[in-house]
Amino acid sequence: MGTRLGELVERLGGQLEGDPQLEVAGIAPLSDAGASHISFLSNSKLRAQAAASGAAALIVAPRDDEFVRASYQGARILSPNPYAYFARAAQYFAALTAIVPAPGIDPSASVAADAQVDPSAHVGPHATIESGAVIGAGAVIGAGCFVGRDAAIGPGTELLANVTFHARCRIGARGIIHSGAVIGTDGFGFANEGGVYIKIPQTGRVLMGDDVDIGANTTIDRGALADTVIEDGVKLDNQIQIGHNCRIGAHTAMAGCVGVAGSAVIGKYCTFGGAAMVLGHLTIVDHVHISSGSMVSRSIHEAGQYTGFYPLAKNAEWEKSAAIVRNLDAMRDKIRALEKTIKTLTKPI
Amino acid sequence: MGTRLGELVERLGGQLEGDPQLEVAGIAPLSDAGASHISFLSNSKLRAQAAASGAAALIVAPRDDEFVRASYQGARILSPNPYAYFARAAQYFAALTAIVPAPGIDPSASVAADAQVDPSAHVGPHATIESGAVIGAGAVIGAGCFVGRDAAIGPGTELLANVTFHARCRIGARGIIHSGAVIGTDGFGFANEGGVYIKIPQTGRVLMGDDVDIGANTTIDRGALADTVIEDGVKLDNQIQIGHNCRIGAHTAMAGCVGVAGSAVIGKYCTFGGAAMVLGHLTIVDHVHISSGSMVSRSIHEAGQYTGFYPLAKNAEWEKSAAIVRNLDAMRDKIRALEKTIKTLTKPI
Amino acid sequence: MGTRLGELVERLGGQLEGDPQLEVAGIAPLSDAGASHISFLSNSKLRAQAAASGAAALIVAPRDDEFVRASYQGARILSPNPYAYFARAAQYFAALTAIVPAPGIDPSASVAADAQVDPSAHVGPHATIESGAVIGAGAVIGAGCFVGRDAAIGPGTELLANVTFHARCRIGARGIIHSGAVIGTDGFGFANEGGVYIKIPQTGRVLMGDDVDIGANTTIDRGALADTVIEDGVKLDNQIQIGHNCRIGAHTAMAGCVGVAGSAVIGKYCTFGGAAMVLGHLTIVDHVHISSGSMVSRSIHEAGQYTGFYPLAKNAEWEKSAAIVRNLDAMRDKIRALEKTIKTLTKPI
Repeated sequence: MGTRLGELVERLGGQLEGDPQLEVAGIAPLSDAGASHISFLSNSKLRAQAAASGAAALIVAPRDDEFVRASYQGARILSPNPYAYFARAAQYFAALTAIVPAPGIDPSASVAADAQVDPSAHVGPHATIESGAVIGAGAVIGAGCFVGRDAAIGPGTELLANVTFHARCRIGARGIIHSGAVIGTDGFGFANEGGVYIKIPQTGRVLMGDDVDIGANTTIDRGALADTVIEDGVKLDNQIQIGHNCRIGAHTAMAGCVGVAGSAVIGKYCTFGGAAMVLGHLTIVDHVHISSGSMVSRSIHEAGQYTGFYPLAKNAEWEKSAAIVRNLDAMRDKIRALEKTIKTLTKPI
Repeated sequence: MGTRLGELVERLGGQLEGDPQLEVAGIAPLSDAGASHISFLSNSKLRAQAAASGAAALIVAPRDDEFVRASYQGARILSPNPYAYFARAAQYFAALTAIVPAPGIDPSASVAADAQVDPSAHVGPHATIESGAVIGAGAVIGAGCFVGRDAAIGPGTELLANVTFHARCRIGARGIIHSGAVIGTDGFGFANEGGVYIKIPQTGRVLMGDDVDIGANTTIDRGALADTVIEDGVKLDNQIQIGHNCRIGAHTAMAGCVGVAGSAVIGKYCTFGGAAMVLGHLTIVDHVHISSGSMVSRSIHEAGQYTGFYPLAKNAEWEKSAAIVRNLDAMRDKIRALEKTIKTLTKPI
Repeated sequence: MGTRLGELVERLGGQLEGDPQLEVAGIAPLSDAGASHISFLSNSKLRAQAAASGAAALIVAPRDDEFVRASYQGARILSPNPYAYFARAAQYFAALTAIVPAPGIDPSASVAADAQVDPSAHVGPHATIESGAVIGAGAVIGAGCFVGRDAAIGPGTELLANVTFHARCRIGARGIIHSGAVIGTDGFGFANEGGVYIKIPQTGRVLMGDDVDIGANTTIDRGALADTVIEDGVKLDNQIQIGHNCRIGAHTAMAGCVGVAGSAVIGKYCTFGGAAMVLGHLTIVDHVHISSGSMVSRSIHEAGQYTGFYPLAKNAEWEKSAAIVRNLDAMRDKIRALEKTIKTLTKPI
């Protein structure tokens, strides 16, 4: 189930230094790679380890090649971004052994008569596909999934088991939606009358571009009147909540447990660490990076890294520092009083 | 699919100034409303925009009417709370085009012989309804939902696709439970014996009142011995966790990702911003408002707004401030030393 | 449906002081226990309440027995850990009335021809069990569950309704996985090439030991190349996220909404309060306790309690303290300036 190096380079590019007939069985990290593996050097600090590696072949950046080839005897594939090359090679090896769901609709699925399911798509057991929904070529709808009325799943997109994809929402090509995710749930919108909440119907949609990945148990609200938009290449991890009318810019990535309140507009190429939170109606420009556990309470107009979480300490120490934080006011007043006194003391007579 | 203004006012109240035969196709915000729309002015700061609006009709509060009517030519509906009127009107327009699930049980659903499903209720594909469960008039059980033994779903309440509603739990009338929510999961209760946890059976229920909305992927634990109680009109957003034996007071609303630990008792008319957390066994009185991202670690006995999150900064600045926070103790000691020295300096000789 | 005290002691141990023929109908807390109940005293501070209790029988520690028996007239079961005894007794009473799912496969379930389902196991309605999966003796697969290819569910383990358990993952004996949990979702692993993310296939597994409890809507990622490991006796509450390649040590417990980023290695006998967060690639030793809402941003090498969250305050007070926290730098500089000035003032001339 392996592949020849020549075939790998033909598919993925890179410059091969070695025998194209050499066969490798799989890809492994430097620390584990043996004589049947291809490995990769993505961090120049590990050059010595790479040079001593027992891997059959190595993916190396030109900047590290001179050092590596001085002692390393195996084949080398030169590529400017060995880590990206590794990812593509790993996809290639994974595909060799992957069990691809067969085209067709499981007899236990409930598919509306006027839903359009491409003949090359797979619909798993106990899935429900409502009227007017469109399932693209090669798409996979896992067991127990729900695809609502007039929703559209793009070609090659996969919904793993137990995904809920509500009416009129859309996702483009080559996406992945993991189990338990809910796309197009109602936004949290109410008018208040004498303390009682009156629901505002949420009639917008969720529109997702191509190459979008949505993590397990992540939820994305449909827009209230307009739409919630997830642009191309966005990657959301598990347990994320995206409020109604948000826009997440292309190629932005969010780690697990992030929350984004309604109508936030987030730029392209941003990253959010786990459990970061974004308040509603904010704007965040492109290339902003939010550290884990940080609360974004104001718009961010300048690219860069932002952080805001209370530093961890032994509990007894935290008790002390938290008590002072509560009374920083008093501390500031003391300093002001000191400054005043000293001013008096140092005043020229 | 529109409606005449006269019909709207007949249903929703308000004082119409204009032609009752005038037909409007839908409702739109001030910025978008055209000649076929009704719009609304809920924020007096937008009076000028309202007065210049091209909407066929406007919902206006009496306090703004004199200003608006001076230049606005369309019809007006006077109501003391235009935003609530908007919500009701939007519900009315949404209902005109809504596709209501047909009464009856989908042939692929599994319904126990002794479950009581009202003939006007809808049970979707692949739903499971266990023995003794009661599904009220006009209730909707979405595709893939599970309703456990002896559970009760009140009249007009809707469970969207893939909701799990466990045995013996109850929800009243006109509720909504969004996809992926789990009601009545076991509370997190264990006895510890030599480091090993021994499960304490969770035999209570979740009891929910009327007009309760539960968000997607929200989880509510059943009580350990007594019950977890969610009172009338409570609105919970997505991804919220409510621990066992909590009580959430009527008309309290929580935004996404909030967590409430076990046995917390929360008052009526409270609001919780996203990702706020409440420790267990606390009491929070009525009309308390917790800001997003805040940790409630003590009971709150006084109404008002409470906050506690670390302010966001550029990462380099946060590094500095966090380092000082870790050593606030030392800073306080320095101030004390200064005070002492100055006391000596200023002591009358 | 009750039990005789003699039978209880025979099953659960402890030293009975009283009539073994005495029958009790159930177990209740001290405050509620009546003449048909057995109750327990786990907190010595409640000795007076126990001594005055109307319970038919009491579980008491030897250290409290002298005090209690002086006035309490009912039967007593002496046990060194009355709370653990209570948990086991409650399990016993719960089992008396529990409705155990019947062995066998529901006709609406989809079970692959070559899946191995033990004849004593239960597979509920609309469940899907893929090729090569193994379901152990007495295991319960709830309605709507998905068990992927070659996965293994140990004997006596229960998956409640709507659990997703992906291919090749394993759980041992006597576990519980609550509704909506997703085991073995892809880890969040990408290579970045010019801003665009390239997915790294996640080919590892999730391996869980015996007596593991997983809460509702909790998600556990499969490893990238190696496996994610959850050791024996781990208890995870609801809405928890565990990243790829993590290892959670035996008998560690995490409360709701905790997040653990990838490759974190957590020791045995640890506890995590609700919404605590752990960054990736950290190591935490045994017997570490993290308070709720705390962010663990560095490895912890010493057992103990750690905390880090911003203290809650009235919003107006928080506004003041947060503004100062943002400028602690300036405050430190002022103190330094004061120190310098005073040094000059106090310098011997």
